Amino acid sequence: MLYPSKLIEDAVNEISKLPGIGKKTALRLTLHLLKQDENATEKLSEALINLRKKTKYCRICHIISDSEDCTCESIRKDSSILCVVEDTPDVIAIQNTAQFYGYFHVLGGIISPMEGVGPGELNIESLIDRVKKSSGLIKEVILALSPTMEGDTTAFYIAKKLKPFNIKITTIARGIPIGGELEYADEITLGRSIVQRLEYDATTN
Amino acid sequence: MLYPSKLIEDAVNEISKLPGIGKKTALRLTLHLLKQDENATEKLSEALINLRKKTKYCRICHIISDSEDCTCESIRKDSSILCVVEDTPDVIAIQNTAQFYGYFHVLGGIISPMEGVGPGELNIESLIDRVKKSSGLIKEVILALSPTMEGDTTAFYIAKKLKPFNIKITTIARGIPIGGELEYADEITLGRSIVQRLEYDATTN
Repeated sequence: MLYPSKLIEDAVNEISKLPGIGKKTALRLTLHLLKQDENATEKLSEALINLRKKTKYCRICHIISDSEDCTCESIRKDSSILCVVEDTPDVIAIQNTAQFYGYFHVLGGIISPMEGVGPGELNIESLIDRVKKSSGLIKEVILALSPTMEGDTTAFYIAKKLKPFNIKITTIARGIPIGGELEYADEITLGRSIVQRLEYDATTN
Repeated sequence: MLYPSKLIEDAVNEISKLPGIGKKTALRLTLHLLKQDENATEKLSEALINLRKKTKYCRICHIISDSEDCTCESIRKDSSILCVVEDTPDVIAIQNTAQFYGYFHVLGGIISPMEGVGPGELNIESLIDRVKKSSGLIKEVILALSPTMEGDTTAFYIAKKLKPFNIKITTIARGIPIGGELEYADEITLGRSIVQRLEYDATTN
């Protein structure tokens, strides 16, 4: 593409490096910013720089946080349940359900031999340490990982590591999504949801 | 949405102010930047700030440019044709066709009583001036405006203003897009494309 200005070209190039944003969208965003108040662009830039320079990871739960001691072990209610997730978006998603009141532990990724990610690169050792140090306070670990090959491998690895502590290990329910149509569900999900069928409860259904 | 960090929240809020980007996409972009090198975010921020602070509008053609004297009247070939467009993206689109070698004139908008944009807010006076000052050098003005109500109104207004100069006034061809299916074309477009039919030319068809 030919741009009338080097400055536009630079901005388009930088914006289009973001995932899911092509050159056309980048150009649209660039021209949008040009039409806005100068202040709007300044605030955007500042927020990005602050984000990148100031965010830290909590030493305990490895969640992205404003400080190295996040509120992970104080504000949430139930210290006996620990929910293990792949990354921060999962924490946000689970928090937004308002159905979980325990602690989180962010792995920072998932075991994936294809992408060269082994257990050593993830926060698994610190999870084991955390369970160990809780001296029986943590009674249940929920493995809230995606039901993919990598997610299952990671869950299997962690479950094996946690076995000596004799705590309850659970995984999020897999099945037909609420609102989903049976006929369009894939065979594996449908099959599992029949094998792992639940007692019908008129109060929740 | 609950965010684990105020910094993430700020970044998400700023990014989601951009057109077509919601909170979820903004969060995805934010977490992407956090995973990238710090340098990537710095370059993005810098490009945005430079864009907003340093871009100027050319005094002659009103195109967005790095300086107030863009190369509008030097590098392009044919000084006898002037193409009038609504805004900078149109200039980029037409340049990318590599079918036009004349000069451009950016109106900076389109007459739209609904949005309170009158002829006075657009670069129409400067277009008339430009044609006047060219003392006959500009022989044709192409009105490359969108075939909408507003575009047609603006074209009509400009055509009337340019009438005294006795130059050729043309408009971009309207018709069935190349690759388009006849049966799906709207009636007005199809009707016009029959009324304004062209002599069949085996060399270009």
